[in-house]
Amino acid sequence: MITLDLKLPDAHYPIHIGRNLLTRTDLLKPHLPIPSAAIVTNSTIAPLYLAPLEQALKAEGIATRVVVLPDGESYKTWDTLNLIFDALLAGNCERKTTLIALGGGVIGDMTGFAAACYQRGAPFIQIPTTLLAQVDSSVGGKTAINHPLGKNMIGAFYQPRVVIADMVLLDTLPDRELSAGLAEVIKYGLLGDAEFLAWLESNIEQLRARDPAALEYAVKRCCEMKAEIVGQDEKESGVRALLNLGHTFGHAIEAGLGYGAWLHGEAVAAGMVLAAATSQELGWLNAADVERVISLIQRAGLPVRAPDLGLTNWLEHMGHDKKVEQGKLRFVLLKQLGQAVISSEVSHDVLQRVLSGQNVTA
Amino acid sequence: MITLDLKLPDAHYPIHIGRNLLTRTDLLKPHLPIPSAAIVTNSTIAPLYLAPLEQALKAEGIATRVVVLPDGESYKTWDTLNLIFDALLAGNCERKTTLIALGGGVIGDMTGFAAACYQRGAPFIQIPTTLLAQVDSSVGGKTAINHPLGKNMIGAFYQPRVVIADMVLLDTLPDRELSAGLAEVIKYGLLGDAEFLAWLESNIEQLRARDPAALEYAVKRCCEMKAEIVGQDEKESGVRALLNLGHTFGHAIEAGLGYGAWLHGEAVAAGMVLAAATSQELGWLNAADVERVISLIQRAGLPVRAPDLGLTNWLEHMGHDKKVEQGKLRFVLLKQLGQAVISSEVSHDVLQRVLSGQNVTA
Repeated sequence: MITLDLKLPDAHYPIHIGRNLLTRTDLLKPHLPIPSAAIVTNSTIAPLYLAPLEQALKAEGIATRVVVLPDGESYKTWDTLNLIFDALLAGNCERKTTLIALGGGVIGDMTGFAAACYQRGAPFIQIPTTLLAQVDSSVGGKTAINHPLGKNMIGAFYQPRVVIADMVLLDTLPDRELSAGLAEVIKYGLLGDAEFLAWLESNIEQLRARDPAALEYAVKRCCEMKAEIVGQDEKESGVRALLNLGHTFGHAIEAGLGYGAWLHGEAVAAGMVLAAATSQELGWLNAADVERVISLIQRAGLPVRAPDLGLTNWLEHMGHDKKVEQGKLRFVLLKQLGQAVISSEVSHDVLQRVLSGQNVTA
Repeated sequence: MITLDLKLPDAHYPIHIGRNLLTRTDLLKPHLPIPSAAIVTNSTIAPLYLAPLEQALKAEGIATRVVVLPDGESYKTWDTLNLIFDALLAGNCERKTTLIALGGGVIGDMTGFAAACYQRGAPFIQIPTTLLAQVDSSVGGKTAINHPLGKNMIGAFYQPRVVIADMVLLDTLPDRELSAGLAEVIKYGLLGDAEFLAWLESNIEQLRARDPAALEYAVKRCCEMKAEIVGQDEKESGVRALLNLGHTFGHAIEAGLGYGAWLHGEAVAAGMVLAAATSQELGWLNAADVERVISLIQRAGLPVRAPDLGLTNWLEHMGHDKKVEQGKLRFVLLKQLGQAVISSEVSHDVLQRVLSGQNVTA
C-alpha cells in the first residue's frame, strides 16, 4: 500500500492506494468521530462490495446504515440526493455520523455533497470503485449534482477525511468504464507531465489489460499530481482550473446529449481532442502533436470525435461553464504536450472551425 | 449608521445598522467582485422594496436579475431553492455574480444556501427586512432549507460579504412579525446579558411601538453579541450552540405543527419558556426567574405555552436536532437569567413533566 498526503492550508488527509483495502477498518476507524456510519452506494456496486464493507464495520461495533441509489449520471440529481437525506434522517444519523461513498464518480460527488449539506456538514470518506474515481474525482473535495442546464452546477468544495483506493475493486469494472477512467489518466499526462504521457503511450495496452503494476502506477501518479495541484489551490482560483482540460467541451457534450448518454470520461476524451485542435489553431501544437493525442485516446478505447451539437447548442452549454468570467469563455488549452494553460483568447472563428470538425484529422 | 465587524479566523465582514441604507450602493459595491448581481426576494417584499434597490444597482451599471419567491416558512424547501438555481442559470449568472438576499429569515437562509452551492460558491449579501433577520439570522452565515423531518437539516455555514440592516424597512413589518423578532432579541438577554435583559423589561413597550432609538439599540446589541459568539466559534463546535436557546423545543414545534403554522420566533418564544421550566426543574432557576421570562415574552406579544405535540412526537422531532450526540439530546438551559449552558443531563422524567406543562405557571 502507498499512502499520499493531500495537504491543504488548514487540513490534510491520506490517500491510500493498494490491494485488498476494502475491509481494512484500521484505515477507516481513525477518521470516524463517533462509531456511526452511513454507506452510500449504487445498485451495481451493492451486490459486489457492500456486504464485506458493511460486515467489517459492524464487526468493529460501528452502527452502519446503508443507502443504495440507482446507478448512472442521469441520477446525479437533487431527487436522488434527497434519498440520502431521507435515509439519514429516518435513521437518526447525527452531525458526526460519517458518510462513506462506495462507488464511482457519481456516488462520490453526491455523497460528498450530501455530507457537505447534512446538518451543515458531516464527515465523509471516499472509497472509489472505478478507475475514474480513483485517479480523479474522489480526490480534492469537489462535490456536486447536475442541473439540466449545466453539469456539476450545484455543489460544494468539501474534503473527505480519507480516500481509500482499492485496486482489487477494478477487477469487476466493465471495459467501457475502464476506458472512461483512462481519459482522466491521459488528461494528467497532457496537462502537466510529458514524461508520464510518454509512459502512457508505452503502457496503454497494459492498462487496458488491467496489469496490476501498471494500474497502480497510473493511479499513484494521477493522485500525486492532483494532490499537489489541489494543495496549491483548493477553491480553483488559479492553477486547479488546469484539471479541467477537455471538460468545458466535455460538460457541454454531457449536458447537450442528456446526462448518461456518454460517460463522463468519454466526453472528456472527445473534449481533449477539441482542446488539442484549438491549441493547434492558436499555433501552440503542431499536427504531429495533435495526432499523438488522438492516437493515444483512440488506443485507450475512447471516442475522438465529439457529437454534432450544432454551434448554438455548443455555445449555450459552454456559456454555463464555471470558468466563464464576465461573459467570456475560458478554455484550458495546451501550450505543448505536458503543459496546459488557461486562455480566454479563443476567437469565435477558431471555435467555429474546431467545433465543426474542419480541422480535426481523425 | 453604526458599523460592526464580524471577525472570523480567515475573513471578516461589516454589519451596517442604520436608516435609509437600502439604496446606499456605496455600502454594496465594494463587495461585488464583478458588476453582476441577482436579488432574491419574496412576493411580500418585492412590491415594497425591490424597485428602489434594483434601480440603485442598475444606475451604478450593475447587471441585475431578480428572483421573486413565494413568501413563508413552508416554502423553505428544495423546490423553492431550485427556482433560484433555474433563474441564475437561465440568466447566465457566473460564479462571481453576487446574490443579494432581500427579505426575512427564510429568504436569507435560502439565498445564502443557494450562494453556497451555486457553482460551488458565489458571493452573497444580506439585506434583512424583518427584525428577526436583522437581529439574528442574517448574521453569522448559517444557511439552510428545511426537510419534512427536521428544521434547517440541509444547509451550509457560508458567510455573507456584508450585512445591511436598514431600520426603515421595519416600518412595514406586521406586528406579529415584529413580535417574532423580539423573541430572538429576548433570547440574547437570557443567554448572555442580564443587563440587556433588564433593559428589555423596561423597554419592551417602546420596542413594540417601534421607537426608532430603542429598536436600533436592540439590533445593535444583538448583532454585537452574535458577532462575538460567531467570531469565537463559526462552525458551532462549542459556544455558538448557546444561540440555540429555545430552539430545540422551537424547531420541534415548527416541524411538528407543519412549517409556517407558527412563526419561527413564536416557536422559539414558547421554546424558551420550556427551557426556563427545565432549568427550574434542575434547580437552576427559581419560580420568580421563570415568571420573569414568561412575563417578558407575554409582554412582547408572544406565546408562552407550546402546543401539545404529545410526548412521542416531541421526542421524535427533538431526536433530529443537530445538537444530538451519540443518541443523547443536548439542551441549551439557563444556569441563571443571563447565563446559558449546554446540558445533556435532562432526564426523561424531567422532560416529560416539562413537556406535559405540569410545571408551567402561566
